[in-house]
Amino acid sequence: MVEKDIEQLLCEVKNGETSIEEAVLKLKEAPFEDMGFARPDFHRSLRQGQGEVIYGQGKTNEQIVEIAKKLLAHGQERVLITRMSKEASEYFKENMTSEIEDFSYDELSKVAVAGKQVNTAEGIGRIVVATGGTSDIPVAEEAAKTAEFLGNKVVRLYDVGVAGIHRLINKKAMDEIMSANVIIAIAGMEGALASVIGGLADCPVIAVPTSVGYGAAFGGLAALLSMLNSCASGVSVVNIDNGFGAGYLASMINHK
Amino acid sequence: MVEKDIEQLLCEVKNGETSIEEAVLKLKEAPFEDMGFARPDFHRSLRQGQGEVIYGQGKTNEQIVEIAKKLLAHGQERVLITRMSKEASEYFKENMTSEIEDFSYDELSKVAVAGKQVNTAEGIGRIVVATGGTSDIPVAEEAAKTAEFLGNKVVRLYDVGVAGIHRLINKKAMDEIMSANVIIAIAGMEGALASVIGGLADCPVIAVPTSVGYGAAFGGLAALLSMLNSCASGVSVVNIDNGFGAGYLASMINHK
Amino acid sequence: MVEKDIEQLLCEVKNGETSIEEAVLKLKEAPFEDMGFARPDFHRSLRQGQGEVIYGQGKTNEQIVEIAKKLLAHGQERVLITRMSKEASEYFKENMTSEIEDFSYDELSKVAVAGKQVNTAEGIGRIVVATGGTSDIPVAEEAAKTAEFLGNKVVRLYDVGVAGIHRLINKKAMDEIMSANVIIAIAGMEGALASVIGGLADCPVIAVPTSVGYGAAFGGLAALLSMLNSCASGVSVVNIDNGFGAGYLASMINHK
Amino acid sequence: MVEKDIEQLLCEVKNGETSIEEAVLKLKEAPFEDMGFARPDFHRSLRQGQGEVIYGQGKTNEQIVEIAKKLLAHGQERVLITRMSKEASEYFKENMTSEIEDFSYDELSKVAVAGKQVNTAEGIGRIVVATGGTSDIPVAEEAAKTAEFLGNKVVRLYDVGVAGIHRLINKKAMDEIMSANVIIAIAGMEGALASVIGGLADCPVIAVPTSVGYGAAFGGLAALLSMLNSCASGVSVVNIDNGFGAGYLASMINHK
Amino acid sequence: MVEKDIEQLLCEVKNGETSIEEAVLKLKEAPFEDMGFARPDFHRSLRQGQGEVIYGQGKTNEQIVEIAKKLLAHGQERVLITRMSKEASEYFKENMTSEIEDFSYDELSKVAVAGKQVNTAEGIGRIVVATGGTSDIPVAEEAAKTAEFLGNKVVRLYDVGVAGIHRLINKKAMDEIMSANVIIAIAGMEGALASVIGGLADCPVIAVPTSVGYGAAFGGLAALLSMLNSCASGVSVVNIDNGFGAGYLASMINHK
Amino acid sequence: MVEKDIEQLLCEVKNGETSIEEAVLKLKEAPFEDMGFARPDFHRSLRQGQGEVIYGQGKTNEQIVEIAKKLLAHGQERVLITRMSKEASEYFKENMTSEIEDFSYDELSKVAVAGKQVNTAEGIGRIVVATGGTSDIPVAEEAAKTAEFLGNKVVRLYDVGVAGIHRLINKKAMDEIMSANVIIAIAGMEGALASVIGGLADCPVIAVPTSVGYGAAFGGLAALLSMLNSCASGVSVVNIDNGFGAGYLASMINHK
Amino acid sequence: MVEKDIEQLLCEVKNGETSIEEAVLKLKEAPFEDMGFARPDFHRSLRQGQGEVIYGQGKTNEQIVEIAKKLLAHGQERVLITRMSKEASEYFKENMTSEIEDFSYDELSKVAVAGKQVNTAEGIGRIVVATGGTSDIPVAEEAAKTAEFLGNKVVRLYDVGVAGIHRLINKKAMDEIMSANVIIAIAGMEGALASVIGGLADCPVIAVPTSVGYGAAFGGLAALLSMLNSCASGVSVVNIDNGFGAGYLASMINHK
Amino acid sequence: MVEKDIEQLLCEVKNGETSIEEAVLKLKEAPFEDMGFARPDFHRSLRQGQGEVIYGQGKTNEQIVEIAKKLLAHGQERVLITRMSKEASEYFKENMTSEIEDFSYDELSKVAVAGKQVNTAEGIGRIVVATGGTSDIPVAEEAAKTAEFLGNKVVRLYDVGVAGIHRLINKKAMDEIMSANVIIAIAGMEGALASVIGGLADCPVIAVPTSVGYGAAFGGLAALLSMLNSCASGVSVVNIDNGFGAGYLASMINHK
Repeated sequence: MVEKDIEQLLCEVKNGETSIEEAVLKLKEAPFEDMGFARPDFHRSLRQGQGEVIYGQGKTNEQIVEIAKKLLAHGQERVLITRMSKEASEYFKENMTSEIEDFSYDELSKVAVAGKQVNTAEGIGRIVVATGGTSDIPVAEEAAKTAEFLGNKVVRLYDVGVAGIHRLINKKAMDEIMSANVIIAIAGMEGALASVIGGLADCPVIAVPTSVGYGAAFGGLAALLSMLNSCASGVSVVNIDNGFGAGYLASMINHK
Repeated sequence: MVEKDIEQLLCEVKNGETSIEEAVLKLKEAPFEDMGFARPDFHRSLRQGQGEVIYGQGKTNEQIVEIAKKLLAHGQERVLITRMSKEASEYFKENMTSEIEDFSYDELSKVAVAGKQVNTAEGIGRIVVATGGTSDIPVAEEAAKTAEFLGNKVVRLYDVGVAGIHRLINKKAMDEIMSANVIIAIAGMEGALASVIGGLADCPVIAVPTSVGYGAAFGGLAALLSMLNSCASGVSVVNIDNGFGAGYLASMINHK
Repeated sequence: MVEKDIEQLLCEVKNGETSIEEAVLKLKEAPFEDMGFARPDFHRSLRQGQGEVIYGQGKTNEQIVEIAKKLLAHGQERVLITRMSKEASEYFKENMTSEIEDFSYDELSKVAVAGKQVNTAEGIGRIVVATGGTSDIPVAEEAAKTAEFLGNKVVRLYDVGVAGIHRLINKKAMDEIMSANVIIAIAGMEGALASVIGGLADCPVIAVPTSVGYGAAFGGLAALLSMLNSCASGVSVVNIDNGFGAGYLASMINHK
Repeated sequence: MVEKDIEQLLCEVKNGETSIEEAVLKLKEAPFEDMGFARPDFHRSLRQGQGEVIYGQGKTNEQIVEIAKKLLAHGQERVLITRMSKEASEYFKENMTSEIEDFSYDELSKVAVAGKQVNTAEGIGRIVVATGGTSDIPVAEEAAKTAEFLGNKVVRLYDVGVAGIHRLINKKAMDEIMSANVIIAIAGMEGALASVIGGLADCPVIAVPTSVGYGAAFGGLAALLSMLNSCASGVSVVNIDNGFGAGYLASMINHK
Repeated sequence: MVEKDIEQLLCEVKNGETSIEEAVLKLKEAPFEDMGFARPDFHRSLRQGQGEVIYGQGKTNEQIVEIAKKLLAHGQERVLITRMSKEASEYFKENMTSEIEDFSYDELSKVAVAGKQVNTAEGIGRIVVATGGTSDIPVAEEAAKTAEFLGNKVVRLYDVGVAGIHRLINKKAMDEIMSANVIIAIAGMEGALASVIGGLADCPVIAVPTSVGYGAAFGGLAALLSMLNSCASGVSVVNIDNGFGAGYLASMINHK
Repeated sequence: MVEKDIEQLLCEVKNGETSIEEAVLKLKEAPFEDMGFARPDFHRSLRQGQGEVIYGQGKTNEQIVEIAKKLLAHGQERVLITRMSKEASEYFKENMTSEIEDFSYDELSKVAVAGKQVNTAEGIGRIVVATGGTSDIPVAEEAAKTAEFLGNKVVRLYDVGVAGIHRLINKKAMDEIMSANVIIAIAGMEGALASVIGGLADCPVIAVPTSVGYGAAFGGLAALLSMLNSCASGVSVVNIDNGFGAGYLASMINHK
Repeated sequence: MVEKDIEQLLCEVKNGETSIEEAVLKLKEAPFEDMGFARPDFHRSLRQGQGEVIYGQGKTNEQIVEIAKKLLAHGQERVLITRMSKEASEYFKENMTSEIEDFSYDELSKVAVAGKQVNTAEGIGRIVVATGGTSDIPVAEEAAKTAEFLGNKVVRLYDVGVAGIHRLINKKAMDEIMSANVIIAIAGMEGALASVIGGLADCPVIAVPTSVGYGAAFGGLAALLSMLNSCASGVSVVNIDNGFGAGYLASMINHK
Repeated sequence: MVEKDIEQLLCEVKNGETSIEEAVLKLKEAPFEDMGFARPDFHRSLRQGQGEVIYGQGKTNEQIVEIAKKLLAHGQERVLITRMSKEASEYFKENMTSEIEDFSYDELSKVAVAGKQVNTAEGIGRIVVATGGTSDIPVAEEAAKTAEFLGNKVVRLYDVGVAGIHRLINKKAMDEIMSANVIIAIAGMEGALASVIGGLADCPVIAVPTSVGYGAAFGGLAALLSMLNSCASGVSVVNIDNGFGAGYLASMINHK
């Protein structure tokens, strides 16, 4: 019940069109309806060309197609689908109808885009996505593709892990890092990349631990703890392997 | 060795003022000196009225005073000191010399400011600092005071934990949340506040787990894991009780 | 050996019908035989139309059929079988004999009912089963079907997770929550749903952490710790993914 | 803003005493008050002679007295204060004013009651509070005193741990267990008591792990995991040492 | 109520010295005594000069004295008190009455014996108590003194840790190990002693991890896990620092 | 180098048959050769009809057959093979030669015996093997078959878990427990069985946690911690699922 | 840009062949090349006949072949490939071209060598690789083959675990241990081997925990913690199952 | 019994001064002394001016003095005492007798040297001790002083953590790192220093995690896991805060 409705109701009470009892009842029911206002800005930012996102894991092929169709039917230009299996993407392609303009799928990152493919990068600056090794690239691509989908220019800086720090500390890479608006630092094993980049950069660094590694990596726990304890300022952490979350947050910051 | 110096050296080589051997030597030594450029922007952003920060914990009273004096002598207007014991603050006051304009200390958050006290809030928007309970306030004040020190307008929203969600979901609190540029969500125990705010807000949320709680809270681990697994987008996490880190990162984002 | 029997025995001793040696023996054996009375009420509550439950996991197809037949042969009207594989359900159907009136199987929750299907909901009030996301539904259905099997009216409130709190805080959902007799709150990832519902509701909340999630969810540990540390009163927790346990306990409370 | 106030306001609108603009403003500010309806039953159950609870830990002596006075001034008959240090209780006694009718403090459980002391046990049945050992008694008394404060009849069954199972499995103790409406099973070390009682009883069992023990007890973790994995049905768990939570939940169930 | 008493009572009933009503009453009160038959051998083994044990930790000085007096009054020759603080031992000495024949206290192991001091070692063979280092000796003495109290011959083999394996593998130490009936292997840090002794000995080895160590010793966890994974056969483990438990079990085995 | 050899060498030195230099060399080499005496008793106890054991896991089919043949060829009557896959057992049967008298394989426990099958139970008393549930039986059978192989009389008491404690506390089961010489208590989930049996029995109890369970059972960790913290005396613990280790140790104790 | 190139450039500047502006540009781009000086010794030691290493896990068959070809084409004599699947090795053999002189693959350790096979052992002394059991051999062979590839003489001492310490403490094994320059101690389960060898040897011991074991071995955690807490001096630890890391480090020490 | 003594004994046997029986007895008692040969090089390296080490923690003041005196009396020139409290050092000074030439104590590292103070650095090259922050210096000094005591030249490179990587990557620091023979990398929090140095250096790197940090540092666990997972080759790890172990191992490598 928005302001206008309350006014209207009060008028009706004044005019005797609505009894006080009825009005009390309606007003008591209202507060939660008002709660709908809770995420309008969020909806707005997503709606303007980027659209809602589907987390593919744990959803059936049918569900994914159905949700995508509904979103596109409601005026959304494009839909991002994350953690989509190859098999689901094939099912999708076979069951696309003309209402879905286009569909692309990246097997490495398991990210798909349904609908209008090209998106303008209206974000303020550039988002640098850096990885410690080549095995971190699937997570990195989930982050990069999410950020691109949400209208950001993304620079990829892969395999610049600290074991060979010269790969990171050289004019070219440093230029990217110095001019970035946000950096996503993705690493498994000991996760030291986040701290090193955090110590070099002058912008927010979103650290993504990955489950890459073995033994005492404990499925990403070592990298996670390492990143949480980063002695560099300006570093925050998302869940293990959460490329989407990092890309989404980076886009938020880049659109400020 | 900056560009100008290299040019100068080449001129000397051309003119025969410097031998090729000497020049090779100098150039070989240069790269790391050049690395000094790595954090100029960082220094700049800090230098302009906010200044360097001293992490007080594990430093002797003497060390803190000495570092603060050095920083202020090098033209920094004010120095933030975090995790400073009351005893250290008293020692500081007793040993201040006229070169330190002023000194304030907040016992709750253990945060002190030495030098010029007032700082203009030149950040873009407002940073909301929210806590789940009253016991989280010391961490919150570390975050808030850090952000204020770095030139941000801060809105405090304390004790709005999810156990009584109406404290959070009401017009006044929601208005603050909806109009924030960055939100710092601080909570111990089950740390659900971050997810709820993340689901309501449309800006980056920095989650700070606190060590508040007992039993299976395991010193903040429960809140930490909860926040890392937040199903809301736009949420990232810093270390347990790391109010400073959250305030610093929030300021970074707010100055974009 | 109840009081009357002891009296009788003493009489026999007095009368010389039983020797002291025999009496000593009987008295020494008695206490444990008496223990048989330990669970009569429990048996009663189960026997009246609901019947014994079979935990299917780790049992062979043959064992399940055999136990079900025995239970039904002993006068139980229906048997609940949980964690039953699809393959086991097919074996069951193929090997049913006329003594088993009917058999239904739900693949999602892996719950089956053998015997008389319909059960009257004689519980006092309604049990609300709420989930944070759609992936939690299999656990939720195990809980719901268990509660229904035991004679309760169940209201399902799925996918009302805190990431979009308006899904929970609206007139319709709130009405269900406000009028529930017991609520089962089921969530994976950060498990915040239990705290939020616990803060809103005025009845016992049984929290069920699920293994839904990845990375730092650690197979349900994050949700489990979160729920154990709930700052809301009236919340208790069962094992990860333990839908049956929650449904069973909810029924107990609802039959008070 | 309660129902009566809304009615009053609508009357004034109808009568022209309040303009529609003013009424809209007042109603817009109301939601927080309106949100109060979210837990009316909770308030009711508490209000009727039992009153709000103060969690003393982490609160200053002054804060506790202040909150207690405010609650009692708002018509609450008695206030429960948990985790109150002895020193805080002494401060309380010294700073009590005549508006606080009485005050009692139990050093063992650190529980205090301010205001009217005696409470009628209007709960349906009895709550049995059982402990494994004597060291668990402080937690047990927190639970018992909470339940009594909330209007329940409590039976104490202390030191009936499974190491000497005859202490539990005898006519007298079994009678209590069999006739209980809710049982709170409190144990540290291996926490087996909850399973054994859960296997014997026919009512909900709330298990409270305690931090009693050493070595691999890991501060209550062993008991916590043990209780969560209880093979007995009808058992749920609260946080380590959370006597209050158990007592509160038990009262909720006992008032159904 | 032991067998003899029951017989006596039955005689009285038979002879009419006791009415049936009185006898029923006595027998109904007996269950605890009757339940005693559950552990007759245990009682026997304890009763014959060794007596019941008091776990001192968490008990008040008064409680310890009181329990000790009661046990000694009931015919027990001596009482073992473990985890007794020095202060408690002093209180004991001051409050001893003539009914307690003697009292000895060992500050290192915090073990005391009240009553008749000397006990005959009627155990079959010898129990060897070995420690990895000198810091493990308090735990070792708890084990050794417990075993001696229960009537065993104990051989101490301290500071024979694997870092200098020649301390263990020499004729003298090996002779003790080879001729032992049970061995208690006590070690902190990496706890390797249990495996090495387990590999050398031909008798049951009870491994006791201790909390000696720092860093990744995690309060005894490293030693505990190490001992549980011992590749030597015949090794079992008790709780961290549980010298009493090891001594008690060793005595049980040694009296077979 | 045994005593006799040293004497011989000294004689040779005395007689000048061996030079002092040679003798010094031989004596310096000796100590480790002497170490061979380290496990003669162990060998003896195994050799007398029971023989060496093969841990099948991680060994190829060929290796198992080869080792078994070698052991039987060296005079051992029978060989126990644990953790042997069904496939390995079939390979064994196909590749047996006449030198192997017989071969039996139990699929449930994955235990095989090669050579002479029947073994006399020369152990002193009976070993009771008890399990909490039916899913623990494979581990229990590994323990039972190991104990039988090593010459012990074994009583099986399966599915006597504490959730239905009357299954354990009844005349028949109690008689077995009371007359046992050693008890092996095997349970997953909360592992309370060990404590309950430990509290009832008067003989050493070897607790075996199993990986049976789900969720917060954490692969046997819950049962392991529970058993390590057992408040009953006389209980010690072996590794999760280590049926062999329990059976071996029980046999050691039963042959004392 | 190596020294020679810088000299050349300076000459050109001097001679006027290159303008100062062009030279500045080239030098600014150079740092990355200059950074190469950071690990010249590393490169040297690798380059001289041993060459760069490929970590096969997570790389496609094509990538492995491609990288190997490139390395061999750049003058490296041989390439070590670790964690290579059998299938990858077969693909390699099929796709080898004449530029790759030879290829060998060891299925057990998953280690391959491409290029010139034989390598001279120019290391100072011998590296002993010892394992606790036979299941640790794959990790041991990864270590041994890495060390041999890098030019070291390796002595294998397998299956000398502490459960039968005479296997380790005998003249032959002790001679190897006493004369080693570096020892790699590899063990799963309780990992005691490292401590025992560390206590015997007089050279650096590199401990490698393996994931061999079950239950409370927790995938190598038990061995890892055990080794980190080794009471023997001179022991350091690498990641679980990290045979390559141990072999590489041992070679480094052996070439000092 | 050293070689010389055995020779002497054999001479006596040859000469008839000692009977064969007596000699056998003496030789049988000898092995323990003979076992001493197991670590002759260790003893040698220690004996030559450096001497045995005393781990002060957990030892009484008296014990430390006594052991030091005994070692110095047996010809050792100097004794290193680690983890010595200030109070113990004062007791030492007060109770020194003329036989102890000198005594020095460093409060920061809690390291003392008793006996001859100056030691020649006969190690091959230099050991670099680097720390991430200033709080790691106590551990670093324990390492440095241990290495110096054992005859090594030590270079200190403190506070070069990765948060400001230019502190590490500059000509001066790099020169030290490049020319080191062994590097000890000491860091708390995220422990990234080890990886970065491992990636830059060409010599063995011994990583020492410290307990510096808070929250998710979990007492050094984060740094420990980070270091164990180092993606740089040539890195191994010792226990948390184990400065002595690192210094000792570094000396071993540096004396190769």
